[in-house]
Amino acid sequence: MSDISTEQIAVLTRLHPADLADQLQRIEEPESAVLALKSMPEDLAAATLAELDPEVLKEFSPLLSEEELAGLLEHLPHSDSTDIVGELPEERQQEVLDELPVDVASPLRTLLQYPEDSAGGIMSDQYTILDGEGTIGDALDRLRDPQIQDQSISYLYVTEKSDRLVGVVSFRDLVLTNRHVSLSKVTNRDIARLHVLDDQEEIARKFEHYHYLALPVVDAEEQLVGVVEANDALIIAQEEATEDMQLMVGVSGEERALTPWHKAIAKRLPWLYVNLMTAFAAAMVVALYEETIAKWTVLAVFLPIIAGQGGNAGMQTLTVIIRDLALGELSSGDGKKALFKEICLGVANGLAIGIAVGVIGFLWKGSMILGLIVGTAMVLTQLTAALAGVMIPLTLKTLKIDPALASSIFLTTFTDIGGFFFFLWLATYALERA
Amino acid sequence: MSDISTEQIAVLTRLHPADLADQLQRIEEPESAVLALKSMPEDLAAATLAELDPEVLKEFSPLLSEEELAGLLEHLPHSDSTDIVGELPEERQQEVLDELPVDVASPLRTLLQYPEDSAGGIMSDQYTILDGEGTIGDALDRLRDPQIQDQSISYLYVTEKSDRLVGVVSFRDLVLTNRHVSLSKVTNRDIARLHVLDDQEEIARKFEHYHYLALPVVDAEEQLVGVVEANDALIIAQEEATEDMQLMVGVSGEERALTPWHKAIAKRLPWLYVNLMTAFAAAMVVALYEETIAKWTVLAVFLPIIAGQGGNAGMQTLTVIIRDLALGELSSGDGKKALFKEICLGVANGLAIGIAVGVIGFLWKGSMILGLIVGTAMVLTQLTAALAGVMIPLTLKTLKIDPALASSIFLTTFTDIGGFFFFLWLATYALERA
Repeated sequence: MSDISTEQIAVLTRLHPADLADQLQRIEEPESAVLALKSMPEDLAAATLAELDPEVLKEFSPLLSEEELAGLLEHLPHSDSTDIVGELPEERQQEVLDELPVDVASPLRTLLQYPEDSAGGIMSDQYTILDGEGTIGDALDRLRDPQIQDQSISYLYVTEKSDRLVGVVSFRDLVLTNRHVSLSKVTNRDIARLHVLDDQEEIARKFEHYHYLALPVVDAEEQLVGVVEANDALIIAQEEATEDMQLMVGVSGEERALTPWHKAIAKRLPWLYVNLMTAFAAAMVVALYEETIAKWTVLAVFLPIIAGQGGNAGMQTLTVIIRDLALGELSSGDGKKALFKEICLGVANGLAIGIAVGVIGFLWKGSMILGLIVGTAMVLTQLTAALAGVMIPLTLKTLKIDPALASSIFLTTFTDIGGFFFFLWLATYALERA
Repeated sequence: MSDISTEQIAVLTRLHPADLADQLQRIEEPESAVLALKSMPEDLAAATLAELDPEVLKEFSPLLSEEELAGLLEHLPHSDSTDIVGELPEERQQEVLDELPVDVASPLRTLLQYPEDSAGGIMSDQYTILDGEGTIGDALDRLRDPQIQDQSISYLYVTEKSDRLVGVVSFRDLVLTNRHVSLSKVTNRDIARLHVLDDQEEIARKFEHYHYLALPVVDAEEQLVGVVEANDALIIAQEEATEDMQLMVGVSGEERALTPWHKAIAKRLPWLYVNLMTAFAAAMVVALYEETIAKWTVLAVFLPIIAGQGGNAGMQTLTVIIRDLALGELSSGDGKKALFKEICLGVANGLAIGIAVGVIGFLWKGSMILGLIVGTAMVLTQLTAALAGVMIPLTLKTLKIDPALASSIFLTTFTDIGGFFFFLWLATYALERA
């Protein structure tokens, strides 16, 4: 694609920045996209920059000078600017910050200290502090101050001595209460809060569980330092769900359907190699019984059935456990209960499928003993699937590894090896007795 | 577990309703849980009822009389009451509504008309309408009206003639503007809105994409009928992600780790039977080549490797596509691009794994031709996995079926059948030539 025409830019600039970012991400050459960005009004270009995927931002930012970047950042809320600066190489971060006026650079430096996935890394610093020792009238006068009016003032937090958070006051109460009443009379002190180092997964869980619209963020001294809103939590929840689903099968949480294939392969292929090793482990179990198969070839026909059923049942268990862990619905004491449930299901499913497979095996191949072997192996495989589906994510979690990480690969290792072993061992035993 | 003691109830009532609901859900006999609920202050019991999982609610509600239910519903926001009444059997719905005072029953009847998964089914009716033809002073006076003050007034929407939504006004502007200015001067008319029948998945996407904190809901006549907040969208997003993950492997979206096994089996076992049928289809491909395997038993050893690699690679593709569809990042024109990417990945992964498998096969079993066959079959299987991973969810979507539904089962059908066929056909061909 060649450069974008003035006409095309005129069309683009009518879009919402989120949609504009989507369009720019579809342009194949970053150079053309950045040129388009540069020819837009600065505030729109800035808002669009803030909406880009981190991967795309990394491609675009080297094409902008420090002055250009700083110029754009001045139009953005500090939390958005922090996300953008945070994606730059470290040496460029300093250079861009140095280009910014001190009243922008200084809050950015503060926000940049916090880990990206913590409350500090997510929070906005746009809120208004009211003095808890004044009156309603003082508060209203403060809100009339033009300097305050430049900021977003959706949330009115009340602090006392050295910024310690004491509560929240609603605009409604400010409007409806007499000017002379002291602010502390209408301050709601019973408010939940986040700590600046709280993990983002935990934050999303809190918002979902308690239905908050916004939560103030405090530091170790209980000083108010920011606000996290429900829409931030929504974005986190989507990211976490994507990561869990994709990590399970060995795909990066950042990959999207249109991520270039040469980038996607870097995460996918290594996990396919891990899967290959585990598949060879399962193959070796089969190899152990090659002699049995040579005598009774029909066994080979049933191998995919054993593996397929074990894998699918195991994935059912695994998915439910991983999702429950992510939603925070499975507390530490619940592991045993969940295991017991899955074992019951494994036995019930195993009997239901085992009998079906056994009968089909008998009818298809006319061998009662084959039906018995494949049916029994199926029950044992379903039980293996239940155990592996519960134990793999719980073990990963205990090891402080993401419970989703490549868990489907580990799971099928267990179900394949277990299933093949039970099936071929039983068959060998039957052959020896025959 | 026997009934709950007064002491235990005293402990429970100190919890947040969301945590209290969690605790009640863990009590094995619904009778004990409902007794505990009845011995709590009515407002707390009501708030707890609103936090219960729908499944649990269905167990608890038959143990409460119509009068008791109506008594609790009076303490709740209408949107929560609607969710509870909506879970009752139809004949009980009317009985409970008849027990309620008309000013509660009437809005509930209105809300109950909308599908559960639509904006109408999710929205709250707690917002305040201001007359767009009055002044700031009129608006402030209206907010002082004690009847209005009983309601939550977080959002101030401005309407004109017969409730047509014209915009939103901020408390901030009300506070900071002179009483005599007309309200229309401070009304922001450039606001996004939802239609009452908009689907919940679409709503979550809009909130995520555009970072709204709340959106007004209008009916066909552009009359304001409700508000959806970002925290509602968060809950929807979590439900949708859970449903997608669990549907993929044939588990109900409602199942949780501690759902009783006899309930879980109703959804899981049928899909395992479907998987069994597809596994038999794959087994029949193997059966077609039983003669080849009888002559060359080592082929059986490689079957699990072919199936395992095809299944894993296919799941990688499938998961990325399903997640992108859910996040609304894959528009209708993007299918071909995504397919092209996955084909490139399939060829690259296929070559990388095929060569590895071929070399290992050669070294392990000392047969060059075996290495060649298994390597070639692997490339073709990876390509099948790529095609199936993209086409299955897109086809389901075209058929207006949830793209996630049992997709992993359909996927492994293709990869198993394709993989076994390529591998065993090549082997048969090689044997005939040998």
